[in-house]
Amino acid sequence: MIHLDLIGIGTGHPDHLTRAAEAAMRAADLILLPRKAEKAELIDLRRAICAQVLAGADVRVVEFDLPERAGEGDYLDTVERWHDAIAACWAAAIARGLPGGGRVALLVWGDPSLYDSTIRIARRLIAAERAVRVTVVPGITSLQLLCAAHAIPFNAVGAPVMVTTGRRLREGGWPEGVDSVAVMLDGACAFTTLDQPDVMIWWGAYLGMAQQATERGRLVEVADRIVARRAELRRAHGWIMDVYLLRRGSDLAGEGA
Amino acid sequence: MIHLDLIGIGTGHPDHLTRAAEAAMRAADLILLPRKAEKAELIDLRRAICAQVLAGADVRVVEFDLPERAGEGDYLDTVERWHDAIAACWAAAIARGLPGGGRVALLVWGDPSLYDSTIRIARRLIAAERAVRVTVVPGITSLQLLCAAHAIPFNAVGAPVMVTTGRRLREGGWPEGVDSVAVMLDGACAFTTLDQPDVMIWWGAYLGMAQQATERGRLVEVADRIVARRAELRRAHGWIMDVYLLRRGSDLAGEGA
Ligand SMILES: C[S@@+](CC[C@H](N)C(=O)[O-])C[C@H]1O[C@@H](n2cnc3c(N)ncnc32)[C@H](O)[C@@H]1O
Ligand SMILES: C[S@@+](CC[C@H](N)C(=O)[O-])C[C@H]1O[C@@H](n2cnc3c(N)ncnc32)[C@H](O)[C@@H]1O
Repeated sequence: MIHLDLIGIGTGHPDHLTRAAEAAMRAADLILLPRKAEKAELIDLRRAICAQVLAGADVRVVEFDLPERAGEGDYLDTVERWHDAIAACWAAAIARGLPGGGRVALLVWGDPSLYDSTIRIARRLIAAERAVRVTVVPGITSLQLLCAAHAIPFNAVGAPVMVTTGRRLREGGWPEGVDSVAVMLDGACAFTTLDQPDVMIWWGAYLGMAQQATERGRLVEVADRIVARRAELRRAHGWIMDVYLLRRGSDLAGEGA
Repeated sequence: MIHLDLIGIGTGHPDHLTRAAEAAMRAADLILLPRKAEKAELIDLRRAICAQVLAGADVRVVEFDLPERAGEGDYLDTVERWHDAIAACWAAAIARGLPGGGRVALLVWGDPSLYDSTIRIARRLIAAERAVRVTVVPGITSLQLLCAAHAIPFNAVGAPVMVTTGRRLREGGWPEGVDSVAVMLDGACAFTTLDQPDVMIWWGAYLGMAQQATERGRLVEVADRIVARRAELRRAHGWIMDVYLLRRGSDLAGEGA
């Protein structure tokens, strides 16, 4: 029997860890740390978290290489095949590390349910082998850190919020029926494509990390500044992760109508 | 100078606390615990969290009564006046407890940014008195616990999610442009008003607490069961908090198209 814990670790600071996350890490026999060549800092952060949390506990930490995503073909198909390949990787690492079964944990950036494929990949293991039980431990998301950094509410009173991606915002424009839109996974500043004079933006990059950067203001006034700052930060650090909240008919305090 | 920390504590279990939340609690001079007559269990939980986290720390915990919301008039107006009254309450409790300034903390259910008025009320203090600095510490939300309990993703791959209220769902029907809808603050099972044959529901009540209850399935098949179970649980415990995720064109694994 394999017990697989998918543990949300928050988005860049060991203090984001919950007590439940720490307990699950210490209860593991094996923690698998995937390596992604491009972001050495993020794997270093996971290593540091393990070193801190696991002091005195009997847990093996094993690093392994993730397969690359094949670039060609239909987007969803490509993702499916990539997830299959990752699941095979996990299965091999687990078979090697825990031939007799036990508890294995994976550390997931932010919360495992939010724009992350770990839960989907874990389902493939369950489908392939009966004797896998999956537990998810929630973690603080980048959206929560964004709101906290700006001390603003996510939603206006009693009002809805759309959580979406940069790609969707760029392709679909301002979504129907909402005045608040939270945007993740935006590599190309989709906010610049909006024609919305009455919109405020709260933006944050590297949230929770030493490099944390934030901007806020009326979109028409600060969009250029964010684009420039984002490009500069990306150059300086070699990578960037950013997220933002847009609200129509709002003030700087984030209180929409 | 007053430093006001708004600390997310998660939704029902001390293990939801992050390291940052614990540190902020222990760094406070004063923690204010609002009493709400109707849910004794929730104030007991806050008391238990304080007792556990503050052991050995020099922090005063002071309980105070929250004003009731006046029922008449326009909804948003009523809420505004209620928040004014709460802000006045906090200001009085802070002036009494920390006449010379210091750090005061409030423990917020879930995450302070999500359908919660604490940040809005804190802004009134800042507006009234210059010497208040507000910090927000994120906490695990009920939506994250819902997804974790069901081990499902919040969003389908690359797709958006609408976060909304029971009232909005009831009044507006299925929102435009999304296949995933997360519903909070629903006292009357708004999902029963939807005419959507192809929808899955993942439901959870008392998430993170000893009474935790979950249901999942095709909405047309499980809606009646959820309505009945919700009524029964509410009767048994005297109160209920529940939340759910709806997804069109999905399977039980939560993987939408
Ligand atoms: C693959 S998604 C994972 C989200 C993650 N599961 C969470 O809970 O936040 C990656 C996206 O999350 C956002 N993100 C993650 N960490 C961030 C951080 N520290 N600062 C700003 N944005 C972040 C960015 O929008 C990024 O494109
Ligand atoms: C005023 S809102 C506060 C939400 C909170 N700030 C959060 O982060 O989850 C209250 C609503 O949150 C949801 N909720 C809060 N705690 C819950 C729990 N333990 N189980 C299920 N739903 C919960 C319910 O939809 C409830 O109506």
